[in-house]
Amino acid sequence: MSAPSLDFWFDFASTYSYPAAARIGPLAAEAGIQVRFRPFLLGPIFKAQGWDNSPFNLYPAKGRNMWRDLERLCEELKLPFHQPETFPQNSLMPARVALVGLAQGWGEAFCVEVFRAQFGSSRRIDEPATLAAILSRLGTDVQGALASAQSDDNKARLRAETEEAQRLGIFGAPSFVTAGGELFWGNDGLAQPLRWAKRGQ
Amino acid sequence: MSAPSLDFWFDFASTYSYPAAARIGPLAAEAGIQVRFRPFLLGPIFKAQGWDNSPFNLYPAKGRNMWRDLERLCEELKLPFHQPETFPQNSLMPARVALVGLAQGWGEAFCVEVFRAQFGSSRRIDEPATLAAILSRLGTDVQGALASAQSDDNKARLRAETEEAQRLGIFGAPSFVTAGGELFWGNDGLAQPLRWAKRGQ
Repeated sequence: MSAPSLDFWFDFASTYSYPAAARIGPLAAEAGIQVRFRPFLLGPIFKAQGWDNSPFNLYPAKGRNMWRDLERLCEELKLPFHQPETFPQNSLMPARVALVGLAQGWGEAFCVEVFRAQFGSSRRIDEPATLAAILSRLGTDVQGALASAQSDDNKARLRAETEEAQRLGIFGAPSFVTAGGELFWGNDGLAQPLRWAKRGQ
Repeated sequence: MSAPSLDFWFDFASTYSYPAAARIGPLAAEAGIQVRFRPFLLGPIFKAQGWDNSPFNLYPAKGRNMWRDLERLCEELKLPFHQPETFPQNSLMPARVALVGLAQGWGEAFCVEVFRAQFGSSRRIDEPATLAAILSRLGTDVQGALASAQSDDNKARLRAETEEAQRLGIFGAPSFVTAGGELFWGNDGLAQPLRWAKRGQ
């Protein structure tokens, strides 16, 4: 029997996807679950819900609490935290690069590093220099990866992933989907999707 | 030194407040934390955010997932679950009765029973008969409790609690506030506010 699996859906602009991306690898390994990183774009999904901005900007009380909550979470998880000046950032470019990396074996490490750069070191993830620095640290062919990210095939792949997220009923990030189609939303409940994945549901 | 404390803010119409109300007593007792139940009304707070209905009704994908998620949670926690026909229900009357009970020592048991009636047995909590049946099971003076709930003093107390919730930056339920003013939102993270309360923060 193959290991139970869990799809981890996230947008690089999503704050709570940062601790989720940092934790899910070790937690899933411990639980014997195979995780698939699935970057997508929340923008079109938020637009369909009538939002043209992050709900954390549209609802200030919610937004203030989210930043403080993220700071507390990072403290408990011993993750670096530094609130970026710009929020949300355009996540199109890192999402395209991540898809290339996930097909080539360096995708998960890249994703964790992009989140850490943005929310741990307050860097711009929509600037090629930030992505190039991460790619270089990971020992990849930097120019090759950036070129592949901008290919028509890869652009179409990201659009298809976003459409698949919408089809699955995903309305925010991070989200987790088990092999049985159970959808869980939010970093807080990470333990619950792992339990359901383990039961094969 | 007195026990660390934690305020548990909830609205009886809030779905995720059901598992929170059922779990917080035992979890807090185990952690040596004194919990105060603080019923309030989300309606005025949602209105201030521009919502005239539950966000679970305004955003259907979110709402569909919430009901399935609540069902899964209840299964794991061994709580009865039955989706009520009407959602959200008017929580004014049970909130007023709860304030009377919390001053008389039967409030927490009443709150847990009201949530269980609504989300465990699909009952109307805006009908006096449901509340009277619960009060009777708890061995209270049913007519006296209902009359006290409708007194001007008690009505003013609930308005003041709702204003206090708004002042604290509460934007949803369940919410948890530590003695140090840390605000946590949502049932999922229940363990985190308990840890912060324990540290005296």
